[in-house]
Parts: sequence; structure tokens; C-alpha cells
Amino acid sequence: MPKGDASKGEIKTPSCRFCHGSNGIAPQPSYPNLAGQQPQYLYDAMLAYTNDMRKGPMASMMKGQLQNLSTQDLADIAAYYSEMK
Amino acid sequence: MPKGDASKGEIKTPSCRFCHGSNGIAPQPSYPNLAGQQPQYLYDAMLAYTNDMRKGPMASMMKGQLQNLSTQDLADIAAYYSEMK
Repeated sequence: MPKGDASKGEIKTPSCRFCHGSNGIAPQPSYPNLAGQQPQYLYDAMLAYTNDMRKGPMASMMKGQLQNLSTQDLADIAAYYSEMK
Repeated sequence: MPKGDASKGEIKTPSCRFCHGSNGIAPQPSYPNLAGQQPQYLYDAMLAYTNDMRKGPMASMMKGQLQNLSTQDLADIAAYYSEMK
């Protein structure tokens, strides 16, 4: 995983907050909270969606959100949410 | 999802704590923190492993841990971790 930059991650997450909350606490019980999560796990989970390693109702939506992002983008987004308290 | 009982969930998680921490904060960066996570999301994620909706290095290990548990067990485990602060 590239070294993530949380300040850049914030810029790269305009749509994430609708499901995961602007504070990283999901407004919906079936969406995960992201605030304070392990950055490596967040990065691996996002990659899993882009690599079709996750199936299910949210999987295609998440893939659509993430597939055009670079691994650096994903690392920045992971840093942004993991550093949220 | 059945209504979960956190006190029963604690009894049903003897092995989870090795990867997810006895306080729900994972000791390893590639394992997710579970403390305070949305219970419905935790329940859905555990079901996804048992239904082969998740692939990858951890997927088979997680399926092995969960496949013999009932949906009530999973709801209790989800309650246990989601109520951890």
C-alpha cells in the first residue's frame, strides 16, 4: 500500500460521505463506519471491490465508485478515514 | 437479522479476539477493528463470508470460523462488538 495522505484523501471522497457519514459514522445500519478503521484494512477492502473479490448488493455500487481511482488515491482515502476520531 | 444479545455474543467469540482484539481494536493493520461498528453491517459481513460472497486470503479462514454458527449466533456476536466502546 502506498503511503496515504489524509488531507488529499478528504478531497478525493466527495461521494463517500453520503453512505459513510461526513464524520465516518454511517447514517445507515447496513453501511460500515469508517472512522478510526485500520488503514490497511480499508485499502484492502476497497481493492477487493475493484477486483471483484466482494459480491452482493453493495459490491457493484462500490466498484463503480472506486474503479477509476489509483492505488495512491485509495491509500489517501484510507488515511483520511482512519485518522478520523 | 435476529435481535442480538451482546452478553451471549461475548461467550460465542472465543477465537475472534485473536485477530480483532479483546477490545475490538485489531492488533494487525490488515484486520478490521470491530468495536462500535454498525451491527447490521457486521452481521451482513459475517453472512457474506459464510455465503462465499467474499474472496481473498482471509475469506476461507473467516468462513471456517463462522459457517457452523446460527444466524442468532451471528446477531449476538454483532451486538457484542457493536456495543464495545
